[in-house]
Amino acid sequence: MSDEPGMHAQAPAHATAVRVYFQDTDAGGIVYHGRYLDFFERCRMDWLRALGFPIRVLERDHGVVFIVHEMRVSYLRPARLEDDLAVELELAALKGARLELRQSVIRGTDTLVSAEVHLACVDCAGLRPARIPVSLRERLAGPGRRLSGMSTLTSTTP
Amino acid sequence: MSDEPGMHAQAPAHATAVRVYFQDTDAGGIVYHGRYLDFFERCRMDWLRALGFPIRVLERDHGVVFIVHEMRVSYLRPARLEDDLAVELELAALKGARLELRQSVIRGTDTLVSAEVHLACVDCAGLRPARIPVSLRERLAGPGRRLSGMSTLTSTTP
Amino acid sequence: MSDEPGMHAQAPAHATAVRVYFQDTDAGGIVYHGRYLDFFERCRMDWLRALGFPIRVLERDHGVVFIVHEMRVSYLRPARLEDDLAVELELAALKGARLELRQSVIRGTDTLVSAEVHLACVDCAGLRPARIPVSLRERLAGPGRRLSGMSTLTSTTP
Amino acid sequence: MSDEPGMHAQAPAHATAVRVYFQDTDAGGIVYHGRYLDFFERCRMDWLRALGFPIRVLERDHGVVFIVHEMRVSYLRPARLEDDLAVELELAALKGARLELRQSVIRGTDTLVSAEVHLACVDCAGLRPARIPVSLRERLAGPGRRLSGMSTLTSTTP
Repeated sequence: MSDEPGMHAQAPAHATAVRVYFQDTDAGGIVYHGRYLDFFERCRMDWLRALGFPIRVLERDHGVVFIVHEMRVSYLRPARLEDDLAVELELAALKGARLELRQSVIRGTDTLVSAEVHLACVDCAGLRPARIPVSLRERLAGPGRRLSGMSTLTSTTP
Repeated sequence: MSDEPGMHAQAPAHATAVRVYFQDTDAGGIVYHGRYLDFFERCRMDWLRALGFPIRVLERDHGVVFIVHEMRVSYLRPARLEDDLAVELELAALKGARLELRQSVIRGTDTLVSAEVHLACVDCAGLRPARIPVSLRERLAGPGRRLSGMSTLTSTTP
Repeated sequence: MSDEPGMHAQAPAHATAVRVYFQDTDAGGIVYHGRYLDFFERCRMDWLRALGFPIRVLERDHGVVFIVHEMRVSYLRPARLEDDLAVELELAALKGARLELRQSVIRGTDTLVSAEVHLACVDCAGLRPARIPVSLRERLAGPGRRLSGMSTLTSTTP
Repeated sequence: MSDEPGMHAQAPAHATAVRVYFQDTDAGGIVYHGRYLDFFERCRMDWLRALGFPIRVLERDHGVVFIVHEMRVSYLRPARLEDDLAVELELAALKGARLELRQSVIRGTDTLVSAEVHLACVDCAGLRPARIPVSLRERLAGPGRRLSGMSTLTSTTP
């Protein structure tokens, strides 16, 4: 979602379209702050799926799942009812059992919320740290990386 | 949306695509039962928007909003993580301040959840019953009705 | 929670205190309609626990869990931010694999939302209908029934 | 709330009891990561209320509300279905329009989740930065500070 092509060559990225419904808002008239974590999660799952690693494949073939280990969220501007948002993701770093992502919620050209999200790869059974599957690691880190799923940006906008 | 073609001629209808994320599931491994109400609400708001009556227009131009007055939900089969669902809606009846809708959640050819939803039109300020705006009423009841937004059916499926 | 002592003799009952936070409301300034299902669920789980059948016991010792099969909800008056509510439950009927409950959300002396909730007892593995465990059935239907957990009514109200 | 007794003398603190229901969990079998933000919010609102500043007072008498401006969350251990948790809060810093809090989710003696939460005081109408009301500021910073609401720690545990 970055305009810098160099970033794209560096980092697999993804964007998911989200529309704001009543369920996402609170009595303050804006999107409830916790709801952005749901938006971020939709984007991460779409990204993994677009990379060929939906959860059911990760679990069944590799016995692992990703859980959020640490998260830093900055709320810059509020989103409102019926806004059409883009939730974006790019890979910042890839370490042993850890994925570090940058995510943001965008409305038009404004960044509303930005976040650093650290995911830990854990085994499904005991939730203990586990190596990121090699095939996923190669998909993320290899030279042949390409943008995935950008076409979903406007996909929920009729 | 319905096997009865006559119904389509009778009733404006809509469909919204929904994908199931972790946020929608519970420790039972299936979609949390309350979450379907969120899916239904997304479809209703998309439908009103497709009819030309997004919430901000209803509020600003007509001073009204719709609230759920009564709801009957039947849970037939569970949805699961990463399912791609269609949430459907058709108008069953239109009365003074009341809209009666039939909604369902579909996976492939299976109906997972079906619901009757009665909406009440209320004034924004006091939440007291109010007439459905004439322009919306005509849009819903008039002879020129047509299906709206069916193209969104697969819209979130990359 | 009923004032009719006869009802209490007839039906095990329970009440759970709920306070309304921003997370429970929407941009309409009132509690989001889907949120009451969460309130009802808290009460049901508290009730089963008070009866000696928390979920982990049901799962581990009996291999079953309850899922919502059908639900009818009537929204009478809106709850608002910071309201202190009582969520109430009474058993209406007990059939093979089915529990029928009446639930309501009360503020002071006003009923805000009322519901009929039909639960199905299912086996954990396949979610297929299963007999309600005899020990729970006896607890629910036997002559020694008594009110459970009423003390929780004001428990979250500092 | 803290092992440093000096901190308690320094900082108003609060604790709210939370029980984990199905609605709080996800298909991974643990509490959904976004749900902890809801738990934190319940504790913050209880704290403000215990200080004599429920939201309706802040809005009506002072025309302000607090919104989350920045948040850092560390997930250390997962909470599970039916866990009884304590959600704790202490004031870390008080600046012009900003409150900095430390919050954590505790099970027994284990810290499951810890967070730094920065709140911004904003005017209700435009959500622009506003001074924290003097009476609240005095309540938070004055010499007569005391712990508030600790009695709620076990309040939802029947």
